[in-house]
Amino acid sequence: MKLTVLAGGVGGARFTHGLYRLWPQDLSVVVNTGDDFQLHGLSICPDLDTVLYTLADWADPVQGWGLRGDTSVCSTQLARLGGETWFRLGDLDLATHLFRTQRLSQGASLTQVTAELAQSAGLSLALLPMCDSPVPTKLRLASGWVDFQDYFVRRQHADAVLECRYQGAAQTPPAAGVVQALRQAERILLAPSNPFLSLQPIFSLQGFAQLWQECRVRKLAISPMIGEAAVKGPLASLLASLGHPVNSLGIAHCLRDWVDTLVIDEGDRALQPAIEALGLKVVCTPTLMQDVAGRERLARLALDV
Amino acid sequence: MKLTVLAGGVGGARFTHGLYRLWPQDLSVVVNTGDDFQLHGLSICPDLDTVLYTLADWADPVQGWGLRGDTSVCSTQLARLGGETWFRLGDLDLATHLFRTQRLSQGASLTQVTAELAQSAGLSLALLPMCDSPVPTKLRLASGWVDFQDYFVRRQHADAVLECRYQGAAQTPPAAGVVQALRQAERILLAPSNPFLSLQPIFSLQGFAQLWQECRVRKLAISPMIGEAAVKGPLASLLASLGHPVNSLGIAHCLRDWVDTLVIDEGDRALQPAIEALGLKVVCTPTLMQDVAGRERLARLALDV
Repeated sequence: MKLTVLAGGVGGARFTHGLYRLWPQDLSVVVNTGDDFQLHGLSICPDLDTVLYTLADWADPVQGWGLRGDTSVCSTQLARLGGETWFRLGDLDLATHLFRTQRLSQGASLTQVTAELAQSAGLSLALLPMCDSPVPTKLRLASGWVDFQDYFVRRQHADAVLECRYQGAAQTPPAAGVVQALRQAERILLAPSNPFLSLQPIFSLQGFAQLWQECRVRKLAISPMIGEAAVKGPLASLLASLGHPVNSLGIAHCLRDWVDTLVIDEGDRALQPAIEALGLKVVCTPTLMQDVAGRERLARLALDV
Repeated sequence: MKLTVLAGGVGGARFTHGLYRLWPQDLSVVVNTGDDFQLHGLSICPDLDTVLYTLADWADPVQGWGLRGDTSVCSTQLARLGGETWFRLGDLDLATHLFRTQRLSQGASLTQVTAELAQSAGLSLALLPMCDSPVPTKLRLASGWVDFQDYFVRRQHADAVLECRYQGAAQTPPAAGVVQALRQAERILLAPSNPFLSLQPIFSLQGFAQLWQECRVRKLAISPMIGEAAVKGPLASLLASLGHPVNSLGIAHCLRDWVDTLVIDEGDRALQPAIEALGLKVVCTPTLMQDVAGRERLARLALDV
């Protein structure tokens, strides 16, 4: 069975890792690139890197992003020189950005560079950026519009987000590999990723909605909410500030037009009738992935539904 | 006395270090940027960095370039990823390139960024790039024209150089700080640097020859040749392939229009009449800088002549 999963963030990476362990062939993962940015002249793709590192089993197990055992010789020196250090760049991690920036400057597409990195990491799946041109996510805070990393890292996602914009998405088609992965998919999965910051950027691409409709296969999402909290990141705050219920019903509001089935945490069973009333099938199961076995368990359920 | 020195390469950096120790105020150093290049999206200025590191006493004492105690976590990982590693980038060294690239992308001039780096390193002198736009040195080998770093690092300067070109120099004026440093100079020194690869790029800048003529002060050069060898680098090979005597007389051929005095190694005293016949005063002294005391000794001589 050909599987295609849409993912972003640490939760998305971990779920995809579970899928990959069960289903290392015929798996394509479409990754959000709305949080990509340039710093120190380097092209940095945090979501692609988190998925790459997690799948390769290179990720820092505590923070979920970055590389296990990474050092900070360069960033410590950069601080001494008075450079910008709000975005931490480990010495190992820097190599990924150097490689990507060099290959892009040579004319390679982001799809191609990402495939090269996946191959170097020994991965057999198709790791796909959602598109090959920048579609930067912009967020409106009380103080005005800011870049995603300004909100997420520099301000440590402490501000309320009043609006999201995926700049240039309507003029940017999905990458060719994404179109192919969706057309060939026999099942499509949405990883437990932030709908506003990881999934909506993909949905907003030029022609994506029609492409999605033409994929007449089972479409299943895993809710990233457990009770009124997200495992990681600012999702609860975003649901609240954007006017949605702060639980899996809020996720159902966001994803109702995109999937037929929503997997929610077993503790949220009480929400099942309200979600079903939106026209979605509901599956209840423990959704917290505490370890690799937990990733595999959730992935197996998503395949078995 | 206001001093201005023109320099490039390890020998130039070491001589400038000696000058700086004796004369930490009122010293300006104009550095070749013909070997600057872009790699992995980063703006790399090897000569500026070598002078910066040497003056700050940060330089690797064995190789002369790069930083003492630097590590290679990033470059080792980059090799694993299949990236280009022909130009070694240490983890500490990378911080300089990240800082520079980020500041340039924010609109700072190379002069400004270099001043910031010098200030972070605690230096009191004026460290000046020769100009603020790229003037890349191109070299013609038997196989055709190549970029400087391709010749110097990737091919380890093993090929014979048949011609040098300083691309865009005639359309690029010296940086404003350079013009000021020369106009105010009460003595001008040429460090023992490669005439073709470090000094000629500066001389070739738009309006430089006239600016130089207008500086009616003592101009003294230190020959980088000792006998028929250069202490470091491909200078002997360049002198030969470009048709000059492979000794300090060859250096005199290159610099006769630019200085009134040439300091040569005491072992080359036999060349004195031939050099004087070119219209240059000659000073003979040991020119090998074996340690910091040697740098100071040579600098003192250049000041005392």
